[in-house]
Amino acid sequence: MTLVVAGRFLLIFVAARLLAELLVRLQLPTILGELLAGVLIGVSGLHLVVPPESGVAVAPWLVQLFSGLGAVSPEQVLQLSAESYPFLQAVASIGLYALLFLTGLESELDELIAVGVQASSVALAGVVLPFALGSLGLIGFFHVELIPAVFAGASMTATSIGITANVFGELGILRSREGQIVLGAAVLDDILGIVILAVVVALASGDGLQWAPILQLLLAAAAFVVAAIGLSRTATPCFDALVDQLRAPGEMVVASFVVLCLCCFAATAIGLEAALGAFAAGLILSNSRHTEAIQETVKPLVSLFATIFFVLIGTAMDLSVLNPVDPANRSGLVVAAFLLVVAIAGKLVTGWSFLSDQPTNRLVVGLGMMPRGEVGLIFLGLGSAAGLLTPSLEAGILLMVIGTTFLAPLLLRLSYSWASAGLPSIDPALQPASTTDVD
Amino acid sequence: MTLVVAGRFLLIFVAARLLAELLVRLQLPTILGELLAGVLIGVSGLHLVVPPESGVAVAPWLVQLFSGLGAVSPEQVLQLSAESYPFLQAVASIGLYALLFLTGLESELDELIAVGVQASSVALAGVVLPFALGSLGLIGFFHVELIPAVFAGASMTATSIGITANVFGELGILRSREGQIVLGAAVLDDILGIVILAVVVALASGDGLQWAPILQLLLAAAAFVVAAIGLSRTATPCFDALVDQLRAPGEMVVASFVVLCLCCFAATAIGLEAALGAFAAGLILSNSRHTEAIQETVKPLVSLFATIFFVLIGTAMDLSVLNPVDPANRSGLVVAAFLLVVAIAGKLVTGWSFLSDQPTNRLVVGLGMMPRGEVGLIFLGLGSAAGLLTPSLEAGILLMVIGTTFLAPLLLRLSYSWASAGLPSIDPALQPASTTDVD
Repeated sequence: MTLVVAGRFLLIFVAARLLAELLVRLQLPTILGELLAGVLIGVSGLHLVVPPESGVAVAPWLVQLFSGLGAVSPEQVLQLSAESYPFLQAVASIGLYALLFLTGLESELDELIAVGVQASSVALAGVVLPFALGSLGLIGFFHVELIPAVFAGASMTATSIGITANVFGELGILRSREGQIVLGAAVLDDILGIVILAVVVALASGDGLQWAPILQLLLAAAAFVVAAIGLSRTATPCFDALVDQLRAPGEMVVASFVVLCLCCFAATAIGLEAALGAFAAGLILSNSRHTEAIQETVKPLVSLFATIFFVLIGTAMDLSVLNPVDPANRSGLVVAAFLLVVAIAGKLVTGWSFLSDQPTNRLVVGLGMMPRGEVGLIFLGLGSAAGLLTPSLEAGILLMVIGTTFLAPLLLRLSYSWASAGLPSIDPALQPASTTDVD
Repeated sequence: MTLVVAGRFLLIFVAARLLAELLVRLQLPTILGELLAGVLIGVSGLHLVVPPESGVAVAPWLVQLFSGLGAVSPEQVLQLSAESYPFLQAVASIGLYALLFLTGLESELDELIAVGVQASSVALAGVVLPFALGSLGLIGFFHVELIPAVFAGASMTATSIGITANVFGELGILRSREGQIVLGAAVLDDILGIVILAVVVALASGDGLQWAPILQLLLAAAAFVVAAIGLSRTATPCFDALVDQLRAPGEMVVASFVVLCLCCFAATAIGLEAALGAFAAGLILSNSRHTEAIQETVKPLVSLFATIFFVLIGTAMDLSVLNPVDPANRSGLVVAAFLLVVAIAGKLVTGWSFLSDQPTNRLVVGLGMMPRGEVGLIFLGLGSAAGLLTPSLEAGILLMVIGTTFLAPLLLRLSYSWASAGLPSIDPALQPASTTDVD
């Protein structure tokens, strides 16, 4: 590890941690903090960590500092900075796959089945509406090209289960009917979203949109997910038996990573994104007896490396394209506002997308589906890396992710306290569980 | 993650795990298995994972397989293989620093002080003898150049605390007098060895051996270690208090990595190896209230990434230089045999290097100091990366590490059963603790 690499890791971790701690104290998702940390130290901020392809120069004082401390010339510092960026990206990609693996691992397929009909209806509405409204709107109103428009639409389909689960847990309604529907629908949304992502990225590297390859990829992706769910029932006992036989240390994390690599290998071999493989690997092992032990060993990897992934997304964002003072940015701002409105409305109405014979707080369901969080960022990161997006569309998607992730917890808490206020007074001890059954 | 990268991770993890599991069942150190796995799939074996700079071609059947599965041309597979090698190395280097951090973290400085005099004497003898005999012998008998000779001598100074601690634990003599002396001496050896490593690598990148820079670097390294030990007493309470204040998830692993990066940054800023910084970071936090929690979060990183580090060392080794059939290799074989003999004898005699008024099994102490294990491999890996070694010297050091790591557990068990057999019969329940007090 050279001085420059160690220095950049330091900058990334310290900035991310400071802002994450700030946002936790404001009861907001930490992922927003990591993203804002990236914006702060990146292209749109202090220019401390910038991607070489952005063409933005590293802040001169930092170059001087590294040059002075490391006894190398400023030119060498700049060269080392550019050369070490792929290293940061490699580490970040490990974080991305570990995070997707963990997301799959935490998908409770059994709970999904228990609220199957309502959750499916919410999930489908939550994928179709933002995707269709977003893509068609971008093409129809703003004359965005087909692939970027489809990709932007796809980036609005995901739901961040982590953020909603956090707020629901804090309000004590995670085990309520609404909580179960939202969690089930979020799992389904993850599956549908990653299928769409795998298909869109694969198409983008081909010859544009044609029906035969789309259908082929959709079928392959669907078959892949169905196979993963099937394997979670059939192959997981074999995995458990094998792990029990292993005696060399580190058996849990290595065995999990072998499954992860195997699924990424299989996904890429049939022409899909490795991201889908990582998620499927988690789905397969979600049924293991060792799920908790696997989570414990994978979480440190996610904490370290997914942080770098989110910070790097922030560093690459050029928010100057959204500066309202520059008249050239007006259209980009309108696009960003459009994306945000579609992203909010397209998920909010899902609360009214299902039939229920029991009283259900439909607003809580809709709001619970709203945050895009880490899944939205994964879309943004992969789309940027594949060069599918224009800078203004990138910034628009970033604002959409930040906006929904920021608003969802706030609005959930507000709507919950309104619902509680409108109720006849009840035993306070029972309140969290009972208020959620009000429509 | 592309198909090629996922495929290579798979090859590395599966090969390492298979051989590690085999060696565990033979009661031998798993690290030998990871190393042999690398030899098996690397330049000296099946040519599945080979460093681009070796000039060895990847096995054609593997290229065909990747090419067929990934729908890319064989030329693209070869290019992707070469391009993804730095990615593997980057991941391996994370494993290296995490391992050094963990080694520092597990150094129990208090226990070291309790057996201070004897342990220091054993440690000093175990550093000076192999270093002096090895370096001078290579220069005097075999006309090896100064820097490679000094480096090879330095690579023999380390003691692998992990392997000895394992065997001692299995024999039930970890808490015996011999066990405490060896563990204390191994910690000191780690410190001395890494100081020597930092100095040698820094010198090698300069203008050869001159007294002024050697002295300056030695002083800097010593000051660095003393500062780390001082900080472990003074700064660790601040670290603990800070960690207790953190509320965003992943606080333990991120806070540890910030300390790790800070120490690597400081080490490189004063011209030393980052490896010394990683080890010092562990030393500093070894006094934390949270040491166990830190270990738990760092171990998965080590299990995954240090495995890659060890396997990559094995893949790069060209053992054909030791093929005894080729007469051109005779001198290399003699050098390898010389290194092995010096490495064994230089540590074995340390058992008789101290005064003791209590009966002590000096053979057990000497054998306990013998395995070079992961620390020897870290030397080898860094020396190869810095281009300091000739292929035959690399192979010789590898054989020395393998030989001592392989022989130490076997000889320890043998000598222990001899010592037990020669004893008057005693209460079997007390045997492990009491037999070790026999000289």
